[in-house]
Amino acid sequence: MTQNRISLPVIKRLPRYYRYVSRLKSDGITTVSSSELAAALGTTASQVRQDFNCFGGFGQQGVGYNVALLNSALEKLLFSGPRLETVVIGAGRLGRTISNFLSREAPGFSLVAAFDNDPAQIGTTLGGVQVRNMATLPAFCAQAKPQICVLCVPEESTAGLIPALIKYGFKGFWNFSHYDLAAGYPGITVENVHLGDSLASLGYRVRHLEQDTTL
Amino acid sequence: MTQNRISLPVIKRLPRYYRYVSRLKSDGITTVSSSELAAALGTTASQVRQDFNCFGGFGQQGVGYNVALLNSALEKLLFSGPRLETVVIGAGRLGRTISNFLSREAPGFSLVAAFDNDPAQIGTTLGGVQVRNMATLPAFCAQAKPQICVLCVPEESTAGLIPALIKYGFKGFWNFSHYDLAAGYPGITVENVHLGDSLASLGYRVRHLEQDTTL
Repeated sequence: MTQNRISLPVIKRLPRYYRYVSRLKSDGITTVSSSELAAALGTTASQVRQDFNCFGGFGQQGVGYNVALLNSALEKLLFSGPRLETVVIGAGRLGRTISNFLSREAPGFSLVAAFDNDPAQIGTTLGGVQVRNMATLPAFCAQAKPQICVLCVPEESTAGLIPALIKYGFKGFWNFSHYDLAAGYPGITVENVHLGDSLASLGYRVRHLEQDTTL
Repeated sequence: MTQNRISLPVIKRLPRYYRYVSRLKSDGITTVSSSELAAALGTTASQVRQDFNCFGGFGQQGVGYNVALLNSALEKLLFSGPRLETVVIGAGRLGRTISNFLSREAPGFSLVAAFDNDPAQIGTTLGGVQVRNMATLPAFCAQAKPQICVLCVPEESTAGLIPALIKYGFKGFWNFSHYDLAAGYPGITVENVHLGDSLASLGYRVRHLEQDTTL
């Protein structure tokens, strides 16, 4: 598929479309209109059509979208191709939860190793893989060439680690540390998951009665 | 403080400003310009000033912002007032991680109880509170009136739970289930944390070489 450069907000909506359409499919629903999709996602029908046009439109609008076709088109966009080999750094409580998630609920990804520098963690199992000594990460990367790095380490550890991790060849970071991995690393894709930010903005909205907004 | 209605993107940036400014403060830095803040957050100086103007401006722009004052103003905005009493629903692996986070790293929130319907979980401890029987939730809410509900349950459980949870008086939901809690509940604030969506969009961007974008 030849694609123009797709904007980040459109990319961010793809998984939400996919989740909604998958549910329709498993509920036995066969067509869906752009207005229904818009209502489910809290956007407009015109935005939905515009988003889908980035990928060729996904079928006829007049009669609604065919749910099965739409579902498989979104699935292909999001998950097709070789699985992305993924490494988790940090085998604490969060690292364990995320590894579990990666090994069970992450189509398109394959958890291949986890690393920690805590002797108590090294050698234990996590998401079906063994926790290795952080000191062996460079050698592992040189040989296995994993593409995705999941950072489940404290903020103070993260900043120092990044340049090395990029040198080891990681192309994408799923970042759970407090450290804001942002612009400044060309060629590198980052998803920062700041649980604290999400919670803080929930708190602000509840305290300040911003009650009819939803993300 | 009298405030006009603040837009959601501005609210979403507050915790990020706060994190960055806190780091400056702990590094002993005393002033910061809107351009430095903009560079750190991947936005523009004009956006930073516009955001801060929503809250009265946070001080003189010509000489930069006073880091200590800015830090305490942001802290006050985000966390001041009585702690929001918080309940976790679902004491599985994710519920445990999140409870731990709530009990240790969540200023402005107070974890008061956790609930599950799995007899193996009921009575165990999680984030410093006991896991109670889900059947006792209505009575607990009637008495303790917790405001925040953290949903760490599977998608299929969530949809059915929501109307009851709203009836029990919860005002804010931190939603980790796959179910998209969205518009349709006026007066209710929702933060959906869809780990799968975040990971899927990372995967899309890495596969499709959208490599110089960052969130």
